[in-house]
Amino acid sequence: MPEVEVAGVGLHPFGRFPDASLKDLARVAVLRALADAGLGTKDVEAVYSANAMAGLLQGQEQIRGQSVLREVGIENAPVVNVENACASGSTALNQAVMAIRAGACETVLAVGFEKMFVADRDASLNALESAADLDVIAGLGLQFTAIYAMRLRRWLDAGLLEPHHLEDVSVKSHFNGSLNPYAQHQKVFTAAEIAASRPIAEPLTLLMCSSICDGAAAVVLRRGDGPARAAAVRPRVAVRGSVGASGHTPAADLPSTPTVCADRAYEEAGVGPADIDVVEVHDAMAPGEILYYEQLGFCAADEAGHLLDSGATSLRGRLPVNPSGGLSSRGHPIGATGLAQVAELTWQLRGEAGSRQVEEPRLALAQNSGGWLQGEPAACNVHILERIEPWS
Amino acid sequence: MPEVEVAGVGLHPFGRFPDASLKDLARVAVLRALADAGLGTKDVEAVYSANAMAGLLQGQEQIRGQSVLREVGIENAPVVNVENACASGSTALNQAVMAIRAGACETVLAVGFEKMFVADRDASLNALESAADLDVIAGLGLQFTAIYAMRLRRWLDAGLLEPHHLEDVSVKSHFNGSLNPYAQHQKVFTAAEIAASRPIAEPLTLLMCSSICDGAAAVVLRRGDGPARAAAVRPRVAVRGSVGASGHTPAADLPSTPTVCADRAYEEAGVGPADIDVVEVHDAMAPGEILYYEQLGFCAADEAGHLLDSGATSLRGRLPVNPSGGLSSRGHPIGATGLAQVAELTWQLRGEAGSRQVEEPRLALAQNSGGWLQGEPAACNVHILERIEPWS
Repeated sequence: MPEVEVAGVGLHPFGRFPDASLKDLARVAVLRALADAGLGTKDVEAVYSANAMAGLLQGQEQIRGQSVLREVGIENAPVVNVENACASGSTALNQAVMAIRAGACETVLAVGFEKMFVADRDASLNALESAADLDVIAGLGLQFTAIYAMRLRRWLDAGLLEPHHLEDVSVKSHFNGSLNPYAQHQKVFTAAEIAASRPIAEPLTLLMCSSICDGAAAVVLRRGDGPARAAAVRPRVAVRGSVGASGHTPAADLPSTPTVCADRAYEEAGVGPADIDVVEVHDAMAPGEILYYEQLGFCAADEAGHLLDSGATSLRGRLPVNPSGGLSSRGHPIGATGLAQVAELTWQLRGEAGSRQVEEPRLALAQNSGGWLQGEPAACNVHILERIEPWS
Repeated sequence: MPEVEVAGVGLHPFGRFPDASLKDLARVAVLRALADAGLGTKDVEAVYSANAMAGLLQGQEQIRGQSVLREVGIENAPVVNVENACASGSTALNQAVMAIRAGACETVLAVGFEKMFVADRDASLNALESAADLDVIAGLGLQFTAIYAMRLRRWLDAGLLEPHHLEDVSVKSHFNGSLNPYAQHQKVFTAAEIAASRPIAEPLTLLMCSSICDGAAAVVLRRGDGPARAAAVRPRVAVRGSVGASGHTPAADLPSTPTVCADRAYEEAGVGPADIDVVEVHDAMAPGEILYYEQLGFCAADEAGHLLDSGATSLRGRLPVNPSGGLSSRGHPIGATGLAQVAELTWQLRGEAGSRQVEEPRLALAQNSGGWLQGEPAACNVHILERIEPWS
């Protein structure tokens, strides 16, 4: 099976951009990713486009990717529009990996974009609800902040977490975000400020939660044994694992969907959790990060608080988690998030992450989840990346 | 690269089903396809779900497939939601083929579903417009009937077609549809009746056009060298070609997108147009079929009318086209259409097509197009299927 490499990555900054259309956001990310790869628009052989809400928010369904990419100058490449709620971006990447592994092409673009700031804020909040089965949600009145809150409440009640852990991990998220020029929120906060911010869904406060956001991210993949790049000046990054999963009805004897997905990705990459050097997880609410420590195999459930306390997951720790600031600080423009995680990890593996660079990582893991099906994510993707050349 | 076979196909009848939800439509198609394959819901390892308009018409974006499949009892299989306007169904199939070719799984379900009959008919017509770039369409006021009409008008003006050809091909479509128990329109019409029906966009009349429709279709694919099926009682059908393309800015010296796509599929299958025995094409308006004769390589442009006149493309001809009745008579529930074409061809190749069975076909071609980008389809997929066992 052909090897797959990350040839280039690019982001449009995350935040509020009232003068930028969906096309503007995506164009910037795509052209930056192509420039980063030393490639032109004519080199793209296939495109996977991720967007979650343009049907409801912009009225553009059906050919979201094509309408954006024609303006960029990418033609003739088959465009596939994928959608998987908050996991749309990583689903696009997973499909792009498959296209190369299937021998269909050698150079593939995955792009994700979302414009959530619209004139009617309620429209944006209502559109978010369609990430769950409306027939179920309409009866329950549940939404995602409440789902995270209930899961954290259970951990707190079971004594697995203390309230300060929720504040501490949010402090870490904001600190990392403050070092990321692409982040929506680039400001540091103290634990006291986070605890004192507006309550959203107990135990979550405003400064723990991701917010409405505009943005775009793009990743160019190439066959590892494909034609040599004109400008192979950067350390090469390989995709060692790329696995998707969808949720099941929860049961006490079944592992969580992210665990199932990560275990398959570890197997595909031939590595284990102890081998991973840097991680991006799907923390739509910053304290969600702590729950993933256990789900991804980095520690047992009763050690998650301790792992955070030890500083292991901070920028200078042995396993930095969410060096980008994560969803809660970098921002969470739905369709772009999964690809922004991979852009961050690519920069980290190359040594290009500036003031938030972690120490010489070799293996990186990205976990992106989306949607909700009666207790489990509707979609989850885990990618494992490896720096090919040793650090010199 | 692993061989891919069609293990099972299933349809929910196409038509108007006010009491059936999207989930009801999809469930019937999925369970029939699994039963046809001799498989159960637990055998499905991955799902590609196609829908074009549920965001705008039902408010359900983001996890359309998961919300449907959980009710069917399919869990744990990664679900990828794809969207490519009227080509959504064949895009799902193309991705399902890739998943097997990439070695990601051995049994994959592709399902397409659409519910276009909603309380507000204008909502349905407006949603159809999002199959083109709204920034372009909004300025032009173009929609799909007009696009087909302009192309046919040009052929008429160039002397390549006579008005009777438009009527004759519609007579053929309705005759084939009358033999198809799954078809939305199962009634025969004379050329005079078709010509006299309400004008839609000159030269198109009502009885030449596909209409708003509910329906669902599903196809189960398996690795050709995978585990033997419990009930391998049916003739086996292999996928020899599966190619996607997206449109480019038209130019006099460039072939059309369906031509590009078909040529690649012929190459992948190692066959040519002369080898094909039965065809399903994307005739959203019945006369569109004639234009595809040339685009798919079955004749030169100035021979298309003659090919129709000769009877070659009728059920008893040497190259039957749209034995199902095509989009205009079988019906065109957007997300389901591409998969319904493959279901029809599978039945034809197995010899299970009843009163519309064509004579012992070995090779079949399905062409499904979707969306519009300044003169070319935004997406196109061509699949070539082959009956493995000889006819006895």
